[in-house]
Parts: sequence; structure tokens; C-alpha cells
Amino acid sequence: MSLDKNAPAVILVEPQMGENIGAAARAMLNFGLTDMRIVNPRDGWPNERAVALASRADMVLENARVFDTVAEATEDLTHVYATTARPRDMIKHVATPAGAAKAMREMTAKEERAGILFGKESFGLSSDDISYADTIITVPLNPDFSSINLAQAVLLVAYEWFQAEDETLDLVLRNEERPANKKEMVALFDRIESALDARDYFEPIQDRRPVILKNMRNMFQRFGLMESDIRAFHGIIKGLTADKKEK
Amino acid sequence: MSLDKNAPAVILVEPQMGENIGAAARAMLNFGLTDMRIVNPRDGWPNERAVALASRADMVLENARVFDTVAEATEDLTHVYATTARPRDMIKHVATPAGAAKAMREMTAKEERAGILFGKESFGLSSDDISYADTIITVPLNPDFSSINLAQAVLLVAYEWFQAEDETLDLVLRNEERPANKKEMVALFDRIESALDARDYFEPIQDRRPVILKNMRNMFQRFGLMESDIRAFHGIIKGLTADKKEK
Repeated sequence: MSLDKNAPAVILVEPQMGENIGAAARAMLNFGLTDMRIVNPRDGWPNERAVALASRADMVLENARVFDTVAEATEDLTHVYATTARPRDMIKHVATPAGAAKAMREMTAKEERAGILFGKESFGLSSDDISYADTIITVPLNPDFSSINLAQAVLLVAYEWFQAEDETLDLVLRNEERPANKKEMVALFDRIESALDARDYFEPIQDRRPVILKNMRNMFQRFGLMESDIRAFHGIIKGLTADKKEK
Repeated sequence: MSLDKNAPAVILVEPQMGENIGAAARAMLNFGLTDMRIVNPRDGWPNERAVALASRADMVLENARVFDTVAEATEDLTHVYATTARPRDMIKHVATPAGAAKAMREMTAKEERAGILFGKESFGLSSDDISYADTIITVPLNPDFSSINLAQAVLLVAYEWFQAEDETLDLVLRNEERPANKKEMVALFDRIESALDARDYFEPIQDRRPVILKNMRNMFQRFGLMESDIRAFHGIIKGLTADKKEK
């Protein structure tokens, strides 16, 4: 993964706890963001509790820049998002984290810089802070329990940023193997059938024999057997059909 | 938002820090999940550090159930996910959190229960734990900095679950059958294992016994067995283990 130098800035506005700044740095680096900006941190800067929490993401803290105001922290940006649950009485576009991530990817591709404001732990962003933003990001949350902490908000927004690039297919089969071919399938069916016949399994239900075998074939076809699965079944059948040991 | 009683269970396997259990409870409730299960917590249960961190999500902890094994914790579930970054040498479907969330919404709509395994902080899930799962969830992460903590992993998976809510419409298939639950799966494994043991199958390869059994569990998990398939396999095993007739 390439760390894009035009990737969005994460702007923490008046953060209170060093631990949360450190955890935010980790969350950023997890998803390829490195430009941290801090507006007026309560406990000054640098902050050793932040460093303790950041672990290997300390490079994000080392490069973090501190500003006195939101206006100064966002000077070089072309689009600013404000994360808040409460748009209140202002008319502003509201995006989901996923929608904002998609838009920011497009900005980055055009070499425009975006930034995301995150408010202080106790009260979030003020309406004054929000007035510096173009667009609000609201994380969809259970309305009955909607408090997430600062680092979690950063995590979700950064995650969506990363996702918006990621081309990972939703479902891939981990696989250096090949699927079983039909010759192998039929050989397996034949072996089970012969083994059952050798033990007179169908004796009392002779009339249902064709239906049972057909159902069995259908069942195995549905499983998407790999070549290694065929070998595993031969092993199991060999084990199950061995003579029982007298103990 | 309605809390769906068939929503997925979050299963913490051998969690070490009470704080992380509490934070996981918060992350769950933020996104509408309430069924927490804990396998063999390091510091016992209840855990007051978990309660301190959970804040208003303490109801999730109060209703949490504790189990001795992954097998017991997943008995009533029909589809189990394992969150891990490292699928290593096993053949299993791998989903993103978003892909898994979509699939779980479909399951819930059919009144099937899913669950998600999260490993301990230090090592994540063991390959043995993973062998009880149908599908792996891997969070896409910056490959150069890919460590996220337990509560963050829960947060991301729960977030995607909540996000997927609106996407499920009429994908529900008419289906008289139901998927096998894990109790039925484990009973099948036990039967095969006992039958193989009774025939000294593992005698010459005693050291490989655990690996062979784990691979067998992984193979069967991948097939998406229905309850009727379980019965079919019991029938086949009964037939194969009968005494061979003299002709």
C-alpha cells in the first residue's frame, strides 16, 4: 500500500486525553493516514501518554503539527469535514463515513487536500468549529446508545477511507488448491456405494436405493469439494470400513 | 432501531483484559448487538474492570454468558465467523467485514443465528478455534501497520453489521430446510472420531491425529451442511461401520 501524501488530514480539536491522541494515531496508521493536526491540546504538546499509547504509530505523533485555531489548521485544505452527531440548526451537507471516503478519494486523485475535524471528548465540536467545515460526517449509530469515543470515530472514518480504495473481493476462497473434477467425484460415489453394498446397507430398503444414492450425490456436489477433500474422504472411508478392533 | 433477537453473537475467546471486554460491550451496543459470549476469560467472570469501561452498555455484560469451549459457545449457531488476519494453511472462505455483514443480515432475515469469534489480545484465535468456523473475516488493514485491538475489531465488524441493515430486502430464500447448528456438527465430528478410534485408524499416525481431526472439521465447516445432510452422514457412517457380510 502506498501512503498517499495527499491523503486526508485528521484534525483533533482541543483533545483532552493523551491516550486518545495516541489511539487516534494508531487508528490512522492502520488505515494509511499519517497527517495528524492538533488544535490547542488541553495538556500541551508533546504528550507522553499519547506516545505510550501510540506504540509503533509514534511516527504519526512525531510529525503531528499543533495549531492555535481551526482556521489555521485547515488553511491548506480545499474541503473540510466535521464529524458530529448533531447537525442542529445549521444547513450543511451531511455524509456518511463511506460517502465522505469516496468523495475524499476523488479529491485526492485530483491532488486536492481534504481534512476531517474531530471534537473534544466531552462535548465534540462546537458550532463555531463546524462553521469551518463544508460537510458534516455523521456515523450511523444505535440511537439508544450513540456515544463513541474520539479514537473510535477516527478509526471508523479512516477505515472507510481505506475501504474506498480497497479492491478486495467480498468473498474469496483461500486457495492454492483445485476443485475436484467429476471423475474424482464419481470415483468417490462408487467407493461409498460399494462399501455400503458390501455391508448390505440397502438390504431392508432396496426400493429406496436409487433415491438415497441420488440424494447423496446431490449433497456432495453441493459442497464444492476440492481435490484434497476427495483424498480426505477416501481416508475417512478407509478408516470407517476397517474391521473394529477387539479390546 | 429495533434490537433483533436473531442478531449475531459476539464471542470473545479467552479475552485477557477486562477493559477490552467492557469496550467491546460498548462497541456492540453502539451498533445494535447485545449477545455477548465469553469463552474462558483469563480473569474470571464477572469482571469489574469490564463493568467500569462499559458505562451504559453494562446491560450487555449482565446478559453475557460464559462457556468453557468454543464448541459449547457456538452450539446453537448455524454460521460461525472467525476474525483473523492470518488464514495460513487452511482452505476457508474469507470475507471482509462488509461482506460478512451482508451475509449475516440475510441469515438473520431467515431466523438463522450467526456468531463471530474474536481471539485473545496477545495471539488472536488459534487454528483450533478457527476450525470451528465456517468463514474467516479479515479486516483490510495497512500491511505495514496492521495491529488493531480487540475492541476495535469488534467495533468494525459491528459497524458493518449496522450499516448493512438497509441493504437486505427480499433476498430471503424459500427454504424448508435449516442449516445444521454447531451442536449437530460437533456431534457428527465426535461420531466420526470415535468410529475411527474404534478401528485404530490413528494407531500408526498418532502424532498427526490432532491435525487430521482439525482438517476434517475445517472441511465439513466449509460445506454449508444442512440439518438433513447431518442425518445423511450419520446414515452413511452407520452403513460404512457395519460388519462386512460374508458372501
